[in-house]
Amino acid sequence: MNGAESLVHTLADGGVEVCFANPGTSEMHFVAALDRTKRMRCVLGLFEGVVTGAADGYARMANKPAVTLLHLAPGLANASANLHNAKKARTPMVNVVGDHATRHMAYDAPLSGDVEGAARPFSHWVRTAASAREVASEGAAALAAATSYPGRIATLVLPADTAWDEAQGPAPALPSHAPEPIDDAQIDAAARILQGGQRTLLLVGFSALRDPQSLRLAAAIAARTGATLMAPTSNPRLERGGDLPFVPRIPYPVDQAIELLAPFRHCLTVEAAEPVAFFAYPGKPSRVLLDGTEVLALARPEQSGPEALARLADRLGVKVTDAPLETVRRPVAPVSGGLTAESIGQAVAALLPEGAIVADEGLTMGREIYPMTRGGVPHSWLSLTGGSIGIGFPFASGAAVACPDRPVLALQADGSGMYTVQALWTQAREGLNVTTLVFANQGYQSLHQELYKVGANPGRTALDMLTVDRPVIDWVSLAKGMGVPGERVTDAAELVQALAKGFAEPGPYLIEVPVD
Amino acid sequence: MNGAESLVHTLADGGVEVCFANPGTSEMHFVAALDRTKRMRCVLGLFEGVVTGAADGYARMANKPAVTLLHLAPGLANASANLHNAKKARTPMVNVVGDHATRHMAYDAPLSGDVEGAARPFSHWVRTAASAREVASEGAAALAAATSYPGRIATLVLPADTAWDEAQGPAPALPSHAPEPIDDAQIDAAARILQGGQRTLLLVGFSALRDPQSLRLAAAIAARTGATLMAPTSNPRLERGGDLPFVPRIPYPVDQAIELLAPFRHCLTVEAAEPVAFFAYPGKPSRVLLDGTEVLALARPEQSGPEALARLADRLGVKVTDAPLETVRRPVAPVSGGLTAESIGQAVAALLPEGAIVADEGLTMGREIYPMTRGGVPHSWLSLTGGSIGIGFPFASGAAVACPDRPVLALQADGSGMYTVQALWTQAREGLNVTTLVFANQGYQSLHQELYKVGANPGRTALDMLTVDRPVIDWVSLAKGMGVPGERVTDAAELVQALAKGFAEPGPYLIEVPVD
Repeated sequence: MNGAESLVHTLADGGVEVCFANPGTSEMHFVAALDRTKRMRCVLGLFEGVVTGAADGYARMANKPAVTLLHLAPGLANASANLHNAKKARTPMVNVVGDHATRHMAYDAPLSGDVEGAARPFSHWVRTAASAREVASEGAAALAAATSYPGRIATLVLPADTAWDEAQGPAPALPSHAPEPIDDAQIDAAARILQGGQRTLLLVGFSALRDPQSLRLAAAIAARTGATLMAPTSNPRLERGGDLPFVPRIPYPVDQAIELLAPFRHCLTVEAAEPVAFFAYPGKPSRVLLDGTEVLALARPEQSGPEALARLADRLGVKVTDAPLETVRRPVAPVSGGLTAESIGQAVAALLPEGAIVADEGLTMGREIYPMTRGGVPHSWLSLTGGSIGIGFPFASGAAVACPDRPVLALQADGSGMYTVQALWTQAREGLNVTTLVFANQGYQSLHQELYKVGANPGRTALDMLTVDRPVIDWVSLAKGMGVPGERVTDAAELVQALAKGFAEPGPYLIEVPVD
Repeated sequence: MNGAESLVHTLADGGVEVCFANPGTSEMHFVAALDRTKRMRCVLGLFEGVVTGAADGYARMANKPAVTLLHLAPGLANASANLHNAKKARTPMVNVVGDHATRHMAYDAPLSGDVEGAARPFSHWVRTAASAREVASEGAAALAAATSYPGRIATLVLPADTAWDEAQGPAPALPSHAPEPIDDAQIDAAARILQGGQRTLLLVGFSALRDPQSLRLAAAIAARTGATLMAPTSNPRLERGGDLPFVPRIPYPVDQAIELLAPFRHCLTVEAAEPVAFFAYPGKPSRVLLDGTEVLALARPEQSGPEALARLADRLGVKVTDAPLETVRRPVAPVSGGLTAESIGQAVAALLPEGAIVADEGLTMGREIYPMTRGGVPHSWLSLTGGSIGIGFPFASGAAVACPDRPVLALQADGSGMYTVQALWTQAREGLNVTTLVFANQGYQSLHQELYKVGANPGRTALDMLTVDRPVIDWVSLAKGMGVPGERVTDAAELVQALAKGFAEPGPYLIEVPVD
């Protein structure tokens, strides 16, 4: 058994089932090991950002890490924007990055580079295997790091000789870190604030948002104490629909956030950071809470939100049955009219299949559709967490790999979609059941708004940097080029028909939706 | 004048004429400054790898740096694979990377990341502007670093407030480093070796390859002394065609390189490293020169190859007119037959317009076409220098921006092309005169060969990781989706017609060439 095989067995023994890969020569022994051991499903991405974005979407839905296979420092760099997003999502992930054989590193061959240096800004844990005999134990350490609460990016660099040299066999699993314990004092302090009668924001992030019981408890606590329940702007995964409580998210536009949060004197955070502006702007604050608002962590990011909410509810005598039930509703699909946020949201809400996964990189449009799907069929909602655009097609693909029985709806802005458009090919190859709405506004619409905040009357040069017209992208041709069928709709009725078709048929389907 | 404007003026005063950009919110003030000052041509890329690949191609042909505009750590990461290639090409480049405003960095907003850490592995020079007043002088320092011999990657991080705060105006240019002086002892030692009568390889890289006079001198020295002139496997730019000497390149396959280099007892390098294998393989050496071959630097990478060759020629009494003249030839285009390396190379050699730029990411196919175009029309040949695939469409685009009057022929492998396919859109928007041949072998053909070197009989899992069939990529649809017209050819006669059409018409044209 060589080093690569010992690593595959170690990771598979530890529960890893899927490898998203974009390998090169230095990873050929790992590829051969995957082939011989047949212990993982291998999914090829035609660009590394597809690989890590898919691994992120997979882990969010499978609740376990995938392994990625990447090629030296430049391959890792291509993967890093979506590692950034996964890191902010606290997604567990094990990256195996091939490097030159140890003895070859002295020669500055063309692909030589600083793999560890490239990994560090985007990983929590980085190590290089020193020899084939150590590959398995390093793999076990990487997996333990990745699965340590709340989820980490572990990057293991694998010099080619450590993959091809003889090893001793798989290594046993290593323990991963559990959530940090919660002090009674945290629970007491939170209870006192909620009983104090001042306007309080209960800001719940991460684990509790993907746990229906915790969501109901949080809503029950808010209802019984007069607090207001919200979630951060972007969340890795939020369970919603049916009579689950609707959780509004803090608005992305800084002025809206400041206005919405102005009434609160306390902010109780549950696995959430204090809300801040996405970007700084001249003359606007970075913090969006009113000055003087007291922020208290009921659960810090390293602690368990579900446990904190359960103990707080217990302390307050609140039961899960105290949660207000969301009104279940299913709007009728629009039969006519143009393509507006309202008609698109209504069509989505009317047609979304039960158990669907919504992978949202719709940006402005995604934010509009979110409240319109409240009370609809039960579904999971995945957001872009790190603000680095180019995750939409990939994380929809990874979610579909994790949950083959659940339809995926991808909400995709056009400018963002172009970053990792190659993921459509992976959807076609794997026959992934992803229906994509591409909102074609022919530009980086959100940047237009940003530019106007900067200075009035931008000229042609500036506008050209923010628009994707001239030429207009033909998304149906792009998708066809990668084996994904699709169509362009021109009004709400066509959208409804196209969505119904996309959801009814297996495999991927892309719908280009022209919007202003 | 704000910091951004002071930077634009400083860079433009220093000779920078083009900005390749993929901006985000934190760069809006720089965009506004580009707009107001109108001192640079701005070229939008829909992905950051397009931006840096284009800046590389531009600088190789313009002999001056472009500036790139990138968005925080993830945007820089997306740009880094082609920064790696540019770094190995010794391309001068100034990257301006926006970051959060200084005061915003404490808040860990979603896009916060370690920009300098991400830059360091792929840049020679990295600094962060501390205030708006220092932006101009930092920009001058970045430009001086980039243009210091032999060409460097300079990355300037621009926190948003250093762009929007008031500055004092542009900064004067700073001196850049000239080539290091060459010792007489180097010249003498090289002369002794050449006069010693043992088989000697004269390995010439970088500057001399783009200087016809130096190429002739190198060929003259070789002819007069019995040495053999070669170039490294990959070179940023090589001038060739007409009666310029044909310079064979060291073969990429390690066994071929070892065989070819076995006769040599001395290797004289001119701005070139000792040749080594691209990758290490079990049981094969990293060095491809015969053990005991003496390597001597006539010019180290930091010295001027043209100067060294001129001084050596002088010392040996060799004149440029001693150079053997390559036989000028122009093969007849094939009128029938299938699409083989031979017919494709013949078609290219027959139809390549005078003064063309060949941007070669054709990998195996590019290596076959290279010798077939010897003695043809004068042209420049650009290669992938760092081995990180995904530069082809971008560097062809940048070369076309630099030389609007010279047609560009891009030789593009299909697997590599998918990494930065978004560059086609930039070609369409800018009306760049690029004719692309996509060699569609439906896979990472070079990896197949690598896999077989690793272990026989790879199974379905392994083969699936190396093939881009299922679905087959429809390159004509992909190009159409981004506004680039094209066609798929099925035999040599169709290829000839398509090439003639592509070269005759302005703007981009893509030809899909199915090959085995």
